[in-house]
Order: sequence, then C-alpha cells, then structure tokens
Amino acid sequence: MTGRYVAVCGPSVATEQEAAWAEEVGRRLAEAGAVVVCGGLGGVMDAAARGAAGVGGTVIGILPGETRSGASPHLTVAIPTGMGEARNAIVVRTADVVIAVRGEFGTLSEIALALKMGKPVVGIGTWEFGKEGESVDAIVRATDPRDAVAQALRLAGR
Amino acid sequence: MTGRYVAVCGPSVATEQEAAWAEEVGRRLAEAGAVVVCGGLGGVMDAAARGAAGVGGTVIGILPGETRSGASPHLTVAIPTGMGEARNAIVVRTADVVIAVRGEFGTLSEIALALKMGKPVVGIGTWEFGKEGESVDAIVRATDPRDAVAQALRLAGR
Amino acid sequence: MTGRYVAVCGPSVATEQEAAWAEEVGRRLAEAGAVVVCGGLGGVMDAAARGAAGVGGTVIGILPGETRSGASPHLTVAIPTGMGEARNAIVVRTADVVIAVRGEFGTLSEIALALKMGKPVVGIGTWEFGKEGESVDAIVRATDPRDAVAQALRLAGR
Amino acid sequence: MTGRYVAVCGPSVATEQEAAWAEEVGRRLAEAGAVVVCGGLGGVMDAAARGAAGVGGTVIGILPGETRSGASPHLTVAIPTGMGEARNAIVVRTADVVIAVRGEFGTLSEIALALKMGKPVVGIGTWEFGKEGESVDAIVRATDPRDAVAQALRLAGR
Repeated sequence: MTGRYVAVCGPSVATEQEAAWAEEVGRRLAEAGAVVVCGGLGGVMDAAARGAAGVGGTVIGILPGETRSGASPHLTVAIPTGMGEARNAIVVRTADVVIAVRGEFGTLSEIALALKMGKPVVGIGTWEFGKEGESVDAIVRATDPRDAVAQALRLAGR
Repeated sequence: MTGRYVAVCGPSVATEQEAAWAEEVGRRLAEAGAVVVCGGLGGVMDAAARGAAGVGGTVIGILPGETRSGASPHLTVAIPTGMGEARNAIVVRTADVVIAVRGEFGTLSEIALALKMGKPVVGIGTWEFGKEGESVDAIVRATDPRDAVAQALRLAGR
Repeated sequence: MTGRYVAVCGPSVATEQEAAWAEEVGRRLAEAGAVVVCGGLGGVMDAAARGAAGVGGTVIGILPGETRSGASPHLTVAIPTGMGEARNAIVVRTADVVIAVRGEFGTLSEIALALKMGKPVVGIGTWEFGKEGESVDAIVRATDPRDAVAQALRLAGR
Repeated sequence: MTGRYVAVCGPSVATEQEAAWAEEVGRRLAEAGAVVVCGGLGGVMDAAARGAAGVGGTVIGILPGETRSGASPHLTVAIPTGMGEARNAIVVRTADVVIAVRGEFGTLSEIALALKMGKPVVGIGTWEFGKEGESVDAIVRATDPRDAVAQALRLAGR
C-alpha cells in the first residue's frame, strides 16, 4: 500500500501500437514497484494490466459495471463500482499521477479530472487542448513508454 | 419533469463577459421551458441560475460537497452529493444537452463525459481539442448566447 | 432553495395503506413549504411525489438509472444518477430529515445511512432494529402521516 | 482476480473481542484464497486486513475520503473514492458475500445494501431487524469466526 499509484488511461479498443505502448508502460511501472490503476476493461487497460501482471505487479481495475464481467483477466483486484462513467473520477482519485496513452473521450475526461484535482498527467500521443487558438500545455509529453514511466515516477515522487 | 434538461457548465470564478453570457443562456433556456442543470456553485453556474430564476425558471444545482453551503442562492433545488468531482458525471447524466461557457479543467471533464455518453455539447468560447495536430470537431460552436440556446434546444429535441 | 428538504423513503411497490400514508406525507410536507426528496420511482416514492405535486409542491427524484425512464410522473425534477443503489446516499445527503414509510432493504439502507450521517429519521410502521436482543431506538416513531410530518419538521428545524 | 471476494464490515472503533473476531475472519479468508474487501479504516476493518495480510492475503480498502490518509497499514491496495458514505455501496458491490462483525449504523447500511442487491450476509453478533414486532431473518448467523468464514465461502460459491 505504501508505493506509488499510477493510473494508465486509454481507449478500450486499442491499435497494436497503443497496446504495445500500454503493455510496456505497465511492465515498467510494476518493475519500479508502482501499483497500476486502470478502468479494468479492454484495449489499453488490458494491455497495461498484462504488462504489469507479467512481471508480478499489482493492478487495480475500477470497473463501470455492477459485476466483474468483461474485466481484463490480468487484474490483481477488480472493483465493480456500478457507477458508469462516474468511476473515472475514482480511477483518477486513486492515482498519484496519470499516464494517458492516446485515448478517446473517456480518457479526455480522466485527463481533465486529474488536472482539476491537481494531479500531474503524462501523455503519449494523447489529447491536445487549448482555448481561443492558444494551446494549454498542462500535460507532460513523453516520447515513448520508458520516458513516460520515468516522468510519471518523478512527478509522483514530488 | 417532462421538459428538456440543459446543463450549463463553466468556471466557478467568471469574468464579466462569461457571467453575462451565462446569465443570458440561463434566461433564454428558462423562457423556452427548459430545466437548467449546473454544478450549483459560483461564477458561470451562479450566473446561469440567476438568469433562469429571474424569469421563473427551474434550476438544479448538483453540488460537490456534503452540505448546501456555498450554493448559489438562485437554485430551485440544491443536491449536495458529497462526491466531489465525481458529481460532474451526474450533472452531465441529468442533461439532454450541455452548453459550455468557456471553462477550466472541470468544464473540460464535463464536455468529455458528455461526448463519451453520446450527448451533444454546444460551446461558447470554450475548449478546443484534438490529437496529433488534428482538431477533433465534436462540439457545436455558438457565436453568442442566443445561438447557443437555439442550437442546444434543437439538439435536445433530436 | 432556502426551505427544508425532507426525504420520503419506502418500497417501490406499495400497499394501498402505504401509498395513502406516503401521499398524505407528501401533501403535508408541501403545504408546509418543504421540498420533498425521494428515489424517484414507484410505490411510496410516486405516492409522496403525487401528494406534494397535487398542492403545487417541489419534488426531487434521485434515480438509480442512467435515464429518466421509469420515473414517477409527479416529480418536479428528475436526476438520473447512473449510480444504482449508491444513489441512496445522495437521497439521504440531500435531506435534512428522513421519513421512512414501512420499506424493504433499500429503505433500511437509507435509514442506516441517515443515522450514520447524524440526520434524524421519523418512521411510520418501518424497520425496527437492535443488537443482541436489545432494541436500538434511533428512530422517532410516528403514529400517522400528520404526526410524521410534524415531527420531521420539528427535527429539521433544529 | 478469479477468487471469491468477501467484504468484512464492522465498526471503525472495535472492542478487543470484535478485533479478535475480525482478525481471525481475515486470516481464515486469506488462507482459503479469498480476497478481503473492507472500508479501509480502523477497528474491524484494520483487524480483518491485519489478519489477511499476516498470511499473505490480498486486502482491498475502499476509503470514504479523497486521500489514503487514515487507511489501515495492512491493505494491499487502498482506493480513496472521495465519495463519503456512498462508498459503502462500492464495498458491497465488490463483494460476493458480506460478513458483518457487530457494527454500528454504517455496518447496518452495508447489510441492507447487500440484501437489496441480493448478496448473502453472514453475521457475528451483528444487527437484528424486523418490522411490526416480527423478526426478518435475512442474515445467516455464525457462532464464531471459523463458522462465519465457512458459511460465507459456501454462500459465495453458489
């Protein structure tokens, strides 16, 4: 319980590259002793869980549904919240830092909730945003999984 | 209960222009018979509530805290959820359509949650976002409060 | 928004007596200017809403599902939380005092949550409980709807 | 993730006997390969976690607050929900069966939510309840921790 908790967020249906990135992120986090937190379903969530579980890491899946049905088989523990998309706030609340791997609107909501809660976010090929034509640079951009994990652990340690 | 529910989202500390926009949005929604939903606090939320209440409209405030303390005085009903930022998902879930007036990261999370849930979003001067240098045009852009309300009511009616 | 909020809890399928009690409770609360809060579905919830709405009162329905489908037609506003039974905590959180009209396990959870939160509970023919053969008298017992409302308003005013 | 999940519920301040019961319940659940779920704080929650962790078991703490502050040091993973008492619904949702060790109103809410969700509840010296003078026997009564765990695992296996 004393380690760092890092959420890995991304699409529930992943491309090969996204899955490869997420699996390496999960593996490197577990090797560093961090607990991996995710939404517990497929795609990037499943790949991150597989990467962490493959090296004996701990992975928490915080699920939207009322049962563990549909959960990644690589989770250490699965939490069916029965709260739908509101569970995104719990994923983020549980994490000390968030790593976003590409992602769709669910991932964008997790990035925004993390920033609202004052938690650092590291992104690999994920959302860019701004207002009135001006970019808002609130995310630390990583070039690859190794860089993403290194930056996330540095930020979590602050 | 049979009318349309429209969420008005925006910063809890508003500029004069943001407050003027939000107040007009709230007023026009109430005049059209829509129920206004908001996060129940200050800034854009309070201004939208004031605009709707001023013409006898109904305004729901869905609050993050455990009590009604800090709520806008213009709410018809105030719901203290005790759920913090997770209440953003309930604001959006309650709405048929979301109008975002500028906004910070909380508003960005509400836009993203609405799009994830398949609900239309109308924006006035609010967040722009995309991936890998490509804009993702998921929000209907309005030029002013009159246009925002007209578009929102049209989209809610679909 | 400045009035007292009173939750009326009870079974979603009601006997004639339960419905008559709930309707009178809703009516008397609305006549006294209180906002009625309920779970928004059928049975006691619907009857309380009907009673309050019939005299022009305000009724909030806090629904477990993701849509307003299945909601009582007598609600002033319907909040689909998408949170399932976890919405019981919001029903209770919104209320200054809870009136339980008989009820099943959902009502028992609302009584328990209210007592945990330090909110008074008034009961008509509702759950009795205790430990090791000793009754725990944490609920104010009312003899009829008139008495229940009078006691609830007295307790809410503290 | 494939094992049975058993929630252990009880007061956050425990007597010596309650703590001894909870610790033995946690230990026996872990020895049987079950994942222990609890509210993550002190008293019975902490004792159950200590018992399970002492034999290498997995313990999930689902916390009411926004941080891991105040969590039992014996948790394998700690989930700060930021949802207050509404987290009780998640504790119960995560479990296949609930064991209640005595308990106060929070525990009564968890028993009621479990029964509402159709999940079996085993009790050691916990709440008794009924209506109109008639006991409602919805809980399986256990005589000691060994019996409670045996009954819970039997019920979880159904």
